[in-house]
Amino acid sequence: MRAVARAISLVEDEDSRAPALLKALFPHSGRAFVLGVTGPPGAGKSTLVDRLTAHLRKEGKSIGIVAVDPTSPYSGGAILGDRIRMQAHALDEGVFIRSMATRGHLGGLAAATGHVLTILSAAGKDVVLVETVGVGQDEVDIVGTADVSLVVLVPGLGDEVQALKAGIMEIADVFVVNKSDRDGADRVVAEIQSMLSMASHDGHRPEIVKTVGTADQGIDELLRAVEAFRAKAGETGLLAKKRRAHLRQQFEGTLEERLMGLVRSRVLAAGEAERLVDRLAARELDPFTAAEEVLRKMGLS
Amino acid sequence: MRAVARAISLVEDEDSRAPALLKALFPHSGRAFVLGVTGPPGAGKSTLVDRLTAHLRKEGKSIGIVAVDPTSPYSGGAILGDRIRMQAHALDEGVFIRSMATRGHLGGLAAATGHVLTILSAAGKDVVLVETVGVGQDEVDIVGTADVSLVVLVPGLGDEVQALKAGIMEIADVFVVNKSDRDGADRVVAEIQSMLSMASHDGHRPEIVKTVGTADQGIDELLRAVEAFRAKAGETGLLAKKRRAHLRQQFEGTLEERLMGLVRSRVLAAGEAERLVDRLAARELDPFTAAEEVLRKMGLS
Repeated sequence: MRAVARAISLVEDEDSRAPALLKALFPHSGRAFVLGVTGPPGAGKSTLVDRLTAHLRKEGKSIGIVAVDPTSPYSGGAILGDRIRMQAHALDEGVFIRSMATRGHLGGLAAATGHVLTILSAAGKDVVLVETVGVGQDEVDIVGTADVSLVVLVPGLGDEVQALKAGIMEIADVFVVNKSDRDGADRVVAEIQSMLSMASHDGHRPEIVKTVGTADQGIDELLRAVEAFRAKAGETGLLAKKRRAHLRQQFEGTLEERLMGLVRSRVLAAGEAERLVDRLAARELDPFTAAEEVLRKMGLS
Repeated sequence: MRAVARAISLVEDEDSRAPALLKALFPHSGRAFVLGVTGPPGAGKSTLVDRLTAHLRKEGKSIGIVAVDPTSPYSGGAILGDRIRMQAHALDEGVFIRSMATRGHLGGLAAATGHVLTILSAAGKDVVLVETVGVGQDEVDIVGTADVSLVVLVPGLGDEVQALKAGIMEIADVFVVNKSDRDGADRVVAEIQSMLSMASHDGHRPEIVKTVGTADQGIDELLRAVEAFRAKAGETGLLAKKRRAHLRQQFEGTLEERLMGLVRSRVLAAGEAERLVDRLAARELDPFTAAEEVLRKMGLS
C-alpha cells in the first residue's frame, strides 16, 4: 500500500521519475475492472461507493477508490470531512483510497487519473471505483471511459441541477436512482425512461436501479446490473471500444503535455513568453500569429 | 447583429475561415469590460445576468452575453427553456445573447470563449457578461480571467453543493449572496467572511453584496461594488494582470490546438492512430513511449 501511495504521489507531484515508473507499470496494467460513478452534487455518490466497496469486499475483491474532488486552498477541510466516512475501509488492507484534486495537473485531469488507474491496476486491484462530480466536462470524460459508468440521480433536486445532469446522461451504462425512499423517486425513473426512449444507445438500453445508499438497499441489484452490462458489453465489443477510447485519451493527454513542455523549455525561453504576452496586450500581435511564430521556431510550419 | 452571430458560428463550427477572421478582429478587441458570473447550480445566475443587463442598458451600455452551458444531445430543450427568460432582451438591438455548449471545442472551451469575447469586443459591445456554472474547472477558469469575477452563492444549498463552491472561492472579486430574502442569508455572509479572514487576496478583500434577483433588489449596489473593484484593480495593476492571464490562456489554447492539429494531419496518417491504440491495447506500447515516437517523427526529440 505504501508503494502504491508513493507512486501516486510521484504522478501528482509531476516528479521527473514518474514517466519511467508509469512506463514500467503499464504492461502490467489494464486488468482491473474500472467502475465509474458520477452524478450531480448531493446525489450520495460517496455513500454508494462506500456501500459498493463493502459488498465487493465480501466477494473477496481487492478495491481501489479514486475520488476526483474539486478542491482549492479553501476546501481541503470540507472534502476531507466528507472522506472520513470512508475510514471504515481505511483500516482494510484490501482497500486503497485516494482523493485527487481537480487542479494543477499539467497534462489534464483525465491524464492524471489515467496514470493513477495504471498504478492501481498494476498493483493488482480487482476493481477500481472512480468517483467524480458529473458537472465538469473533464470529470464526465473520466467516468465515460470507465468499463462501466454509473450515473447517480436523486429525487428532489432543483431544476437547474437536473439540467446539469443533461451532460452526463449519454455516458450512463446503468442509471442509479439513489435516495429512492424519498418522494418523487418513481418520477425520476419515469423521466429517465422517457429520455432513453428518445435516444440510441449502441443497441444497449441502460438499466435503472433504485437504491438507498445510507440503508444499504439495492446494492446487490446494482452490482448485478453492472455485471450484466459488463457481460453484454464484452460480447458486443463495446467494452473493448471503451477501453480503446480511454487509451487514446491517455496517449493524447501525454502527447499534449510533452509538446507543451517542449514549447516551454525550448522555444519560449525565459522571458520570451512574457514578451509575447506584452505584444498581445498591446494588440500588436494576435494569438494565431503568435502560435504560428512558435510553430515556425519549432520547424513545424 | 447578424454579422456577429455569423462570426461566432464560424468559430463554433471550427470553420477554416475562423482563424483569419479572428486575426483581423483581434486588433479591435480588448476594449469591452468583461464581467464573469459563476456559482453553483440553482444560485440564480441567469436571473442576475438578466437584471444586470437591464440596469446596464438604462445607463446606455451595449451588452454581450455569453452563457456557457453544459449541454448534450439530451439537454438542448431544457437549456433553451432556461434562456427564454432572456428573450425580453432579445428584442433589444443593444443586447447580443449567445449560448455556448461545453462540448466539442477542439482547442478547449476556454479558447472558444476567448474567441467569442474577441468578436463581441471588436463589435463594440461596452460590457460582456460571461455566465458559467462554477463547478467544472474549465468554467471556473473562464470566469477567473474576466476583468471582474462575481461568485454567486445562495442560502440553503446542501452540504455537497457548498463544498463545490470551494473551487470557485478564490476567483471571486465580488461575492453575491442571491435569494437573500431566504432564511440563512446572513449565515452565508458570515461563512464567506470567515473564509476571507483566512485568505490573502492580493491586498484586495472582496465585497459581499446581498441581492434578490427575481425582485430586482441589490442590483445597483452590486454594480457599484463591481465598479469599485474595477477602479481599484485598475490602480493596483491587478486588472492588467488578469487581462494578461486571459491573453496567455488564449495563446496557449491556440498553440495547443495547432500542435495537435499538426500531429493529426501530418504525423498520424489515416489508420496510424488506430494502430498506435492497437499496440497500447495489447500492452506492447505505453502512452509515454508512444508520445516519444510521435515527437521523434516530428523531429522534436
